[in-house]
Amino acid sequence: MSRQKLETKEIRICFVGESFVNGTGDPEFLGWTGRVCINAQQKGYEITYYNLGVRAETSRYLKQRWFQEVSYRLPQEIDGRVVFSFGVNDSGWAGKKQGIELPETIENTRSILSEAKQFYPVLMIGPPPCGDVEQEQRNQIIANLSQQFALICRELDIPYLDVFSTLVNSSVWLAEAKANDKAHPRAAGYAEFATVVQNWDGWLSWFS
Amino acid sequence: MSRQKLETKEIRICFVGESFVNGTGDPEFLGWTGRVCINAQQKGYEITYYNLGVRAETSRYLKQRWFQEVSYRLPQEIDGRVVFSFGVNDSGWAGKKQGIELPETIENTRSILSEAKQFYPVLMIGPPPCGDVEQEQRNQIIANLSQQFALICRELDIPYLDVFSTLVNSSVWLAEAKANDKAHPRAAGYAEFATVVQNWDGWLSWFS
Repeated sequence: MSRQKLETKEIRICFVGESFVNGTGDPEFLGWTGRVCINAQQKGYEITYYNLGVRAETSRYLKQRWFQEVSYRLPQEIDGRVVFSFGVNDSGWAGKKQGIELPETIENTRSILSEAKQFYPVLMIGPPPCGDVEQEQRNQIIANLSQQFALICRELDIPYLDVFSTLVNSSVWLAEAKANDKAHPRAAGYAEFATVVQNWDGWLSWFS
Repeated sequence: MSRQKLETKEIRICFVGESFVNGTGDPEFLGWTGRVCINAQQKGYEITYYNLGVRAETSRYLKQRWFQEVSYRLPQEIDGRVVFSFGVNDSGWAGKKQGIELPETIENTRSILSEAKQFYPVLMIGPPPCGDVEQEQRNQIIANLSQQFALICRELDIPYLDVFSTLVNSSVWLAEAKANDKAHPRAAGYAEFATVVQNWDGWLSWFS
């Protein structure tokens, strides 16, 4: 019994997505992904942390690269898990430039998630709100996208976390984004994002 | 003048290599790479941090993957830089399993670095010492490898940092590695590694 208590479970997690996964803007270089790993480690898990967030990433390119990068880091013999989080670029800046419309985003997302769940335990975390001048319009698009993602995940039986609904009411997230580059917050905003994830059943189910 | 002072220089850095680049074992999930980025950010640079350290990586596979992963994250229009650090796996555990001998490591390293410098400003940081039961023998191999890397980098005019010589005399690095998994330290060991990098002319030349 006491021996079991001393055993540390080793888990390797790939976080895959765009700049919000990368933690862009965080002067502490942890983002929400590093912070949730610190929290899980403190519960007695030995976590290997792979951050595969890429700035300006859209679902079109994520669909093409995720498996190669993830399978290289999570060979079959180890306990590997994958957390996806994307959507803001599809809804705005990068997506518009690349002509990505909602039907394509939905198709890409369904394809990515249904393939991923064949290989790994998978979680999906939705896109956060933005604070630029077109905030109202963009956030309506992101809110709609988040609902679409929820439907896809329900269909595929993948736990989904809607962070948009929480963070759009957070003064910290939007205030930091506005004061920074209109999209990415600083340390306090990412800490708030991390808290939402850490309290989520989907994430907690991996550490019990 | 005051306007220039207020301008923040945006730099994106890919750190490419093995588990020591990943920061494996660090409960703070920064490793030496995250710590040197925090330090550079505090000097007024806006850093995007891409950690491409992969556990058990050897030069044979790094040679095959680095360009695809790096060029995806560092498009031509942005100020992208690359820091390589590898060698421990070539010298030991993973390399032995895969039959990687010194001549192949040297050939792979020359190939990786000479290709990389055609596209990006490049730095190379050598392999750190280990603290396992075969410590003496392995560290002799790593020390020799570090000297070989220094020669290749001199030949290619790429700044090279020999961290081995400093860390082999560090009680913190080896004590933490021994108490952990014999290879990877915890937070204090990685902080010591970061300090060596931060005081190095090669790294400092990127932030002046």
